[in-house]
Amino acid sequence: MGDSGTAIDGAVRDWGTLRERYCARMQRGAALAKDKVVAPDDVVALLEAVIEPGDRLCIEGNNQKHADFLAECLAEVSPERVHDLHIIQSNIALAPHLDVFERGIAERLDFCYSGPQGLRLSRLVKEGRLKVGAIHTYLELYGRYFCDLTPNVSFIAADAADHEGNLYTGPNTEDTPAIVEATAFKSGILIAQVNRIVDRVPRVDVPGDWVSFVVEAPRPYYIEPIFTRDPAAITEVQILMAMMVIRGIYEKYGVARLNHGIGFDTAAIELILPTYAADLGLRGKICKYMSVNPCPTLIPAIESGFVEGIHCAGSELGMENYVSERSDVFFTGRDGSMRSNRIFCQIAGHYSDLFIGSTLQIDLEGNSSTATLSRITGFGGAPNFGSESRARRHGSESWLMAGREAHRGNGMPRGRKLVVQIVESFREGLSSTFVERLDAWKLQESFGLPLPPVMVYGDDLTHIVTEEGIANLLLCDGPEEREQAIRGVAGYTEVGMARDPEMVRRLRAKGAVSYPEDLGVDKRLATRDLLAARSIKDLVRWSGGLYDPPARFRNW
Amino acid sequence: MGDSGTAIDGAVRDWGTLRERYCARMQRGAALAKDKVVAPDDVVALLEAVIEPGDRLCIEGNNQKHADFLAECLAEVSPERVHDLHIIQSNIALAPHLDVFERGIAERLDFCYSGPQGLRLSRLVKEGRLKVGAIHTYLELYGRYFCDLTPNVSFIAADAADHEGNLYTGPNTEDTPAIVEATAFKSGILIAQVNRIVDRVPRVDVPGDWVSFVVEAPRPYYIEPIFTRDPAAITEVQILMAMMVIRGIYEKYGVARLNHGIGFDTAAIELILPTYAADLGLRGKICKYMSVNPCPTLIPAIESGFVEGIHCAGSELGMENYVSERSDVFFTGRDGSMRSNRIFCQIAGHYSDLFIGSTLQIDLEGNSSTATLSRITGFGGAPNFGSESRARRHGSESWLMAGREAHRGNGMPRGRKLVVQIVESFREGLSSTFVERLDAWKLQESFGLPLPPVMVYGDDLTHIVTEEGIANLLLCDGPEEREQAIRGVAGYTEVGMARDPEMVRRLRAKGAVSYPEDLGVDKRLATRDLLAARSIKDLVRWSGGLYDPPARFRNW
Repeated sequence: MGDSGTAIDGAVRDWGTLRERYCARMQRGAALAKDKVVAPDDVVALLEAVIEPGDRLCIEGNNQKHADFLAECLAEVSPERVHDLHIIQSNIALAPHLDVFERGIAERLDFCYSGPQGLRLSRLVKEGRLKVGAIHTYLELYGRYFCDLTPNVSFIAADAADHEGNLYTGPNTEDTPAIVEATAFKSGILIAQVNRIVDRVPRVDVPGDWVSFVVEAPRPYYIEPIFTRDPAAITEVQILMAMMVIRGIYEKYGVARLNHGIGFDTAAIELILPTYAADLGLRGKICKYMSVNPCPTLIPAIESGFVEGIHCAGSELGMENYVSERSDVFFTGRDGSMRSNRIFCQIAGHYSDLFIGSTLQIDLEGNSSTATLSRITGFGGAPNFGSESRARRHGSESWLMAGREAHRGNGMPRGRKLVVQIVESFREGLSSTFVERLDAWKLQESFGLPLPPVMVYGDDLTHIVTEEGIANLLLCDGPEEREQAIRGVAGYTEVGMARDPEMVRRLRAKGAVSYPEDLGVDKRLATRDLLAARSIKDLVRWSGGLYDPPARFRNW
Repeated sequence: MGDSGTAIDGAVRDWGTLRERYCARMQRGAALAKDKVVAPDDVVALLEAVIEPGDRLCIEGNNQKHADFLAECLAEVSPERVHDLHIIQSNIALAPHLDVFERGIAERLDFCYSGPQGLRLSRLVKEGRLKVGAIHTYLELYGRYFCDLTPNVSFIAADAADHEGNLYTGPNTEDTPAIVEATAFKSGILIAQVNRIVDRVPRVDVPGDWVSFVVEAPRPYYIEPIFTRDPAAITEVQILMAMMVIRGIYEKYGVARLNHGIGFDTAAIELILPTYAADLGLRGKICKYMSVNPCPTLIPAIESGFVEGIHCAGSELGMENYVSERSDVFFTGRDGSMRSNRIFCQIAGHYSDLFIGSTLQIDLEGNSSTATLSRITGFGGAPNFGSESRARRHGSESWLMAGREAHRGNGMPRGRKLVVQIVESFREGLSSTFVERLDAWKLQESFGLPLPPVMVYGDDLTHIVTEEGIANLLLCDGPEEREQAIRGVAGYTEVGMARDPEMVRRLRAKGAVSYPEDLGVDKRLATRDLLAARSIKDLVRWSGGLYDPPARFRNW
């Protein structure tokens, strides 16, 4: 003890190895930089100079913006100099993200989500060229950045930088602060690709002294408009489900604070707020605060004074000017543009009153998953939004009412988050949404995962909405009733046909199963006339011309 | 629709009112400032100029650093000019926090935690001078800052500022980033009290263009060393419990990533890692990564290579130099000092494998609470650390093993966070920790709370450790077994005496109740000789003189 404190097994330990390695890396890198600025042509050499074998490396790339130029440069480094990397990043979306495994530069991967690269990822796993540590949700992976998966090197993307490295991310701040903080404060190297280098950034989103190197990329960072849904594609079935959600859930519980998943089902809800919900006198009572990206289909609800406040995880292409001109609603900076931040949006959404989203499969316990057979995918933020907020302690009308339904006098009274899955009983291709056994079980087996990849667990789920009706799982006693309530809204699927009609009648009598007529929903109104906007062009009009949709959404 | 988009009820809506109010506030305030800097004597006038009646206002003040000078100034403003404020801040700790209610400046309060001011807070509520919205946990309140409780004005505390308003928080960053981001990006006024104004800050923790005004306070901000426990006060009972935790939980599950609550019980665990746990060959296997403040009792475990990485919510007085010199372990900035951040620490801790903390009362369902009768208190971060992380998807040895115990083949397999309460059966004053009914029920009644204030719910709890043994609630089938497992470790309390000995024997046979001999714990070793440090002076020695304890902890 005491004097032997810094000596283990007789050797005096050096407690600043990371800092020393940082200095050595910076010294090697500085030879290629002018102040902090590196020329695009020197980036491959920079990476070979600062990255060390075995490093944990994060490439920013969530479901919107990507540090794509730096990702490409990494795929070009010499595998003799840079190898055995452990990639720890949220999204596997671009070819270079997997090229580094093909080329022997990286070998381990911890991530959240893979989209179009899912098939190739599966192949690399099977070939033994890529070892998956685990599939995470966003907050969970960022949490590990501050625990056992701290990056040694990170690549981030920003709109602009000044010569001191101060970064401007504009509306697309997204995941940058989380990655930056974990890297910069554990002696990591932080390299930013920016669209332009300027004398003075419009606002500082990341302080320059946290940033190691900056490169003006040959082209702007890659970004995708993934939250845009064309109202023209919304069906009458989706409108009917949206009406049921508004009457049977939003109105019933008085849901004021919520998160909407991506998809046409929730877009339909957004587009009938100014019509159907307004006629029901629900303005100022429901949907006041949202934790979502700035979905264009929210424009009519914002313009009609329905949605009062929105905090965003990221931005959406084309919505920049509209958001800037609605600073009472959105979070914006002194420069006028939005400040997004996935961490805070995820936290706010987790503690809000309701999450509603779509899924591909639901089993008889209510477990749901979007995992399909041939791909390794993931769930991003849905499990966090769509799970009970057990550390919540403040009351709200909605949370307390749902809690009363759930507990009905048993044990300690508590509140309950509403977690809703909205699905049609049959998906495209006529496969059933409702299944006896999720594909997730087979996926577990074929990819050697520790557990089946479930998006929302049945015991977190409170409601299932289909074209047939609403199952309220809170009012079910025991697994048998839950199963029958699910069957009771599963339509003409096999699962639905196998219902026990007598038990479903009893569940309906106690409100655990509700059909449109039970909710006061007039099915005849479920037409596209109910949509406040029926096309992208309508959304542009609602926005007073501020919404500027990407070319692929313009057909006029 | 369309052209009427910005017109509701015929009136054209102004969508930039917050921004306009911001400009007007800044204009009024600027008259009192030179650039951003305001003289201490002008602060009361500044507050009267920039705060508007009905504002939501946040005073930074968590359980460590406080914007105390600004809090005092607020209590001095004229209630005729500033009134009806809605205070939204984590901690009610200082007299001025409640003076504003006494003086009619503020009327509503949403908060997380009240310490010594709890009695006075209760009185003000009863007198109708203070309306409590709700009691929150930390992440939950910060989440609401980005939803329905965004501050119009916030006061924060920092170590230094430059003339452009760039802030240096040094090791005590704590909650500042969350408050700053919510305020600065929703047209709020951000006022920073700093210990000194300098030409160049050692590092930028908050960018200057987010900050409205800066004042060099007449004295450094108030800060408390609340994580320091003197090893001299650790008892042999606590050492015995610590031994059981190490063998019965940390070793059994292989707990590598965890969070320790504050208290002598967890300090005892920390102090026998380098002795007892090392002898068991557990170095490199347990307690590798922690989400905690830099508790001085962790020094021996760090020095002996046990704890490899720590991310901190805040700092601890006296630990600054030690942390700086251990940058391989702690998160530090280029200036050498720590970077703390409560948000990221809470996220990392929530997704780690185990939380262990103490409580004052546990009922027969395992619900626990530190709420006592006469005070309105709160739980800060414990409910978040101490609740199942339902949005977690990555596996670990510990999480998967606990999940197997919990589910035992029923339904969808999943992992499980270990949530442990460590308590002696009798508290000081000889009142029983184990009760049939928590005081929380009476508190709910007397303060009109929507629910009893429970810290950790029974269904989130996995283990209870007492001087008698460990109850493993995961292995209990049904409420009756849970109750008997709890009684089975409740010692000579009334709850313990009323156990069903036959059932406890059965529970013991299946591992749901374990006594020291079942765990291979030799009670004779439970002496203070097992502590790696037996005094604050020992901790200083272990640190090689780097730990500099506050005067009140020095008795040599």
